Amino acid sequence: MLLVHKYGGTSVGDLERIENVASRIMKASDAGNNIVVVVSAMSGETNKLIDYATHFTTTPAKQEMDMLLSSGERVTAALLAIALQAKGYKAVAMTGRQAGIVTDSVHTYARIKSIDPKAMLDAINDGKIVIVAGFQGINEDGNVTTLGRGGSDLSAVAIAGAINADACEIYSDVDGIYTTDPRIEPKAKKLNTISYDEMLEMASLGAKVLQNRSVELAKKLDVKLYAKSSFSDNEGTLITKESANMEEVLVSGVVLDKNQARVTLRNVSDRPGIAAEIFTKLAEMGINVDMITQNVGIDGSTNLGFTIPQSELDNAKSVIESFDHDIGSMDFDKNLCKVSVVGVGMKSHAGVAAKAFRTLAASNINIQMISTSEIKISVIIDEKYGELAIRILHDAYELDK
Amino acid sequence: MLLVHKYGGTSVGDLERIENVASRIMKASDAGNNIVVVVSAMSGETNKLIDYATHFTTTPAKQEMDMLLSSGERVTAALLAIALQAKGYKAVAMTGRQAGIVTDSVHTYARIKSIDPKAMLDAINDGKIVIVAGFQGINEDGNVTTLGRGGSDLSAVAIAGAINADACEIYSDVDGIYTTDPRIEPKAKKLNTISYDEMLEMASLGAKVLQNRSVELAKKLDVKLYAKSSFSDNEGTLITKESANMEEVLVSGVVLDKNQARVTLRNVSDRPGIAAEIFTKLAEMGINVDMITQNVGIDGSTNLGFTIPQSELDNAKSVIESFDHDIGSMDFDKNLCKVSVVGVGMKSHAGVAAKAFRTLAASNINIQMISTSEIKISVIIDEKYGELAIRILHDAYELDK
Repeated sequence: MLLVHKYGGTSVGDLERIENVASRIMKASDAGNNIVVVVSAMSGETNKLIDYATHFTTTPAKQEMDMLLSSGERVTAALLAIALQAKGYKAVAMTGRQAGIVTDSVHTYARIKSIDPKAMLDAINDGKIVIVAGFQGINEDGNVTTLGRGGSDLSAVAIAGAINADACEIYSDVDGIYTTDPRIEPKAKKLNTISYDEMLEMASLGAKVLQNRSVELAKKLDVKLYAKSSFSDNEGTLITKESANMEEVLVSGVVLDKNQARVTLRNVSDRPGIAAEIFTKLAEMGINVDMITQNVGIDGSTNLGFTIPQSELDNAKSVIESFDHDIGSMDFDKNLCKVSVVGVGMKSHAGVAAKAFRTLAASNINIQMISTSEIKISVIIDEKYGELAIRILHDAYELDK
Repeated sequence: MLLVHKYGGTSVGDLERIENVASRIMKASDAGNNIVVVVSAMSGETNKLIDYATHFTTTPAKQEMDMLLSSGERVTAALLAIALQAKGYKAVAMTGRQAGIVTDSVHTYARIKSIDPKAMLDAINDGKIVIVAGFQGINEDGNVTTLGRGGSDLSAVAIAGAINADACEIYSDVDGIYTTDPRIEPKAKKLNTISYDEMLEMASLGAKVLQNRSVELAKKLDVKLYAKSSFSDNEGTLITKESANMEEVLVSGVVLDKNQARVTLRNVSDRPGIAAEIFTKLAEMGINVDMITQNVGIDGSTNLGFTIPQSELDNAKSVIESFDHDIGSMDFDKNLCKVSVVGVGMKSHAGVAAKAFRTLAASNINIQMISTSEIKISVIIDEKYGELAIRILHDAYELDK
């Protein structure tokens, strides 16, 4: 088989761990597989470099940041190739550029435009294990670019697509995707399979095993993705296309997101388009608005509520306060969290949402906002009930079975 | 003026020192100069990366070593550009590749084949200070190469040649070239000017301020080279073409080299070409033979003596012992040193060598071997007299005046 392995920062965090990764690759190679390995920087390195840069200014130029940050992955790639060669395996290290990765010019958050896999495929045909520095490419002017935090996952998936790999295995320090955060609910169970869409809902809601953009890309390129641990031989979780089989499972997981804040605007003026104006301004500031509710009061006035990431609350306040002549009163609430129930089974099964509402009500947890999609129900509740809600929902949907 | 500045590892050893370097560049820029800056890795970084690699094997592949080691200079280049931008200066960081540096494919010891200065000159025309990661380029296959220890000096000189710079200023933690090592002779004086050839003799003999290949290249490209300190505003030493003026100075410096060992082979068989065979084998092992003496004993047997770097003695022994059927007896001596007197003035002044011999004899220092060139006299003496010899010769040629 032709495989892409990707090892994250913790998996290559020191020289012993790099040796451990080398052993895993050797085993996969001995089993007759051809392998392209994508690596992150050794854990801590990227943050160290960011600290260096911000010693000089809080707003370092992004082109220079890319040159700076891309160095960490190169070090790991070279060291891993050397470790494999030391064991008598043929290996070659490549930078993003050498692996043929061309991106757009949005420094520090570039998107991959194309991959010319020739150099990688030539090396594989030479019997070599190819080690690629993740997270990076060059733009059409030849300048180094990086793909944003977690960008090595993206490199791995894009390469898997470009070389038409049989699978892309993402190794980290967790051994797969769980029905919920095991730190909240120790009965959480590892999932054997999950669909791309469920994974997207899980990831964006806080289960940070796989970078979201890479899951989106895997879905687009139809890359079979595995989330595995580099510290165990457990089987991991396969993220793949939805299958009829999957729909028998009602719910795949429940997720808690504490990074939530709610903005409530009361007596918003009836000037048309005022809501659109506010949301446009927020978008321009890069603030992601999540749930939105709107209702008309008995006196005909409009009330508007929406949630944003808690970390963006101060920025959002300054935007909204500039509209104060159009708004009767405004309210900002940080003591909230979002609990979501995710599962492709919802599409074909009625009553999934009702069960969630019943379960929460039975424990006297008040639901403040609701949003639903085809495969997800999210509710905003008081922050202090977050963990409890996860546990009782995990139980109600029998996710430990 | 169009200037190349080069800052070594100690000069950019931490963030404060990088800020100090930024200040120096800003000053040169404020004075109306256009500047290309070449930087080394922060001191300690390259050794750290070498330690990492040799954790896996004592013989890491050179192509991967180049990818590994080239990362240190990229970090410094990016950080220095960020530091300058933070002060409101326009700056851009470039890798060796982006600066247009193409080398041959001898990994870890590549030679620069060509430099396309377009990107650097375009940036300068845009009013930018250009910061180039030293020590590196790419070969014609696009693989990263490095230029060997001290290779950033070479990058700087080659770039100065390619952009036709008015001068190339090499900054380190010493403020120029001295008549001898001030740790041996406190009366050592800084030279204002020295010729390329004298510098070559001084450098290869142990005064490690400038990498030898870079001085050779500066001579070839006729680049005006300055050795300066990044920690002071002292004037430094200009290394340039020999001038009539220089020849009035008899001797420029005296140099001690303790890394010397002598091999003496007695009763070497009269088989023709045996000496050539031995020297060829040594060369194949990369062992540099320095002085050679040969004489014929009264009984007609041949005695052969030569010096090699002390660090190569064990390797040399194993080569020579393979010839033992051709050699009567052999002797290896490590308690030696080489003292050299360097000066272009020797060309036109007689008696320089005689004064050295007289001076040493007056202190009862026995000369064991002699070698002379147009601008240099070297003698091999007992190691324990090395420092004394330097001091009395420094005095004899009035180098403190």
